Amino acid sequence: MKSIPLPAIRRYPLYLRRLKSYRIGGTMWVSATTLADDLGFSSILVRKDLALTGLEGRPKYGFAIDPLIEAIEECLGWNNRTDAILVGAGNLGSALLGYSGFSQYGLEITAVFDSDPDKRGKKIQGKSILSMDKLAGFISRTHIPMAVLTVPADSAQRTAELLEDAGIRGIWNFAPVKLKLSDKVVVQRVDLASSFAELSSRLKRNEL
Amino acid sequence: MKSIPLPAIRRYPLYLRRLKSYRIGGTMWVSATTLADDLGFSSILVRKDLALTGLEGRPKYGFAIDPLIEAIEECLGWNNRTDAILVGAGNLGSALLGYSGFSQYGLEITAVFDSDPDKRGKKIQGKSILSMDKLAGFISRTHIPMAVLTVPADSAQRTAELLEDAGIRGIWNFAPVKLKLSDKVVVQRVDLASSFAELSSRLKRNEL
Repeated sequence: MKSIPLPAIRRYPLYLRRLKSYRIGGTMWVSATTLADDLGFSSILVRKDLALTGLEGRPKYGFAIDPLIEAIEECLGWNNRTDAILVGAGNLGSALLGYSGFSQYGLEITAVFDSDPDKRGKKIQGKSILSMDKLAGFISRTHIPMAVLTVPADSAQRTAELLEDAGIRGIWNFAPVKLKLSDKVVVQRVDLASSFAELSSRLKRNEL
Repeated sequence: MKSIPLPAIRRYPLYLRRLKSYRIGGTMWVSATTLADDLGFSSILVRKDLALTGLEGRPKYGFAIDPLIEAIEECLGWNNRTDAILVGAGNLGSALLGYSGFSQYGLEITAVFDSDPDKRGKKIQGKSILSMDKLAGFISRTHIPMAVLTVPADSAQRTAELLEDAGIRGIWNFAPVKLKLSDKVVVQRVDLASSFAELSSRLKRNEL
């Protein structure tokens, strides 16, 4: 994988979704301009983003949809399955487990952990909840690279350190905490509180 | 509310959470430096962010925690309740409804809508699901300002237009779609696909 800039990487899922809906509609070719118009982006931006996949458009036709989908999925690494564990089987964790969208990204949750003894052995979304004692052993045995962290804020840092020590290399952090870990671990945060703060604030300004 | 820059607004929830945990621990004063260290930010940044609330620290003591919490909540508008409806009672919608964190932001979901006739009248997280026919009437009657959009991608644009026409002024968009609306409506997107794309890509680079 070449070093594609992160802003382009972040747009790729939007392109993918749109391309797949063209394909369902029976379309086989699409121009960067059409894709740009449909997504509300500038066509220069889309042209650049698509060029980064290594594919070239054909004059008058644009891009053949199937190879373009494949190339973008390849760039995202979504053509390969990524195994992950989920830590924290509360409301949000259980929701994310049930969210069917993940399979589109190749993300597969293979095990679920929670510190609550009452949850042990119970199932959420068809998966058994395992005790935290089993966490380190599971990670070192399976070499699983990624964890989805949905524990409460208070225990997020402690749990993240446990994950790092056990060998996890990427954490998708849904806890409202900025984790402090070594640079061996990549942390990607989804911060609902910040997002809502931004919305509240923009809404107020828009009304002035 | 003064015009506090959005990056500061996005950090305020992190400060809030940390300040509240100091308070639970019995602490009454905190310095910008301590807050900065605990959160992994530079102290200059934290000092600037806190100054934007209009409060001043006291030499040697720093900030009194209670007034600081109040001032930040005031800046975020979280001291007042924000009513919102939730549109789309699928997995993600139902999870967000059950997510107790929202009440901390003053966000209150007052009604839930879904287009699926089979869901009509059923309850999720203690709230009855209403039919989409009732949406416009409900919004114009209650003057509710905000909607949380958790419908599938295919129906997101259509539903958002409906919300705009009915008078909604802010949309928290969880559908993986860039909505095209007039500038009367503020849209804040939470894009799980983009976030996961970024994580996958950074994880790959970190391993090279």
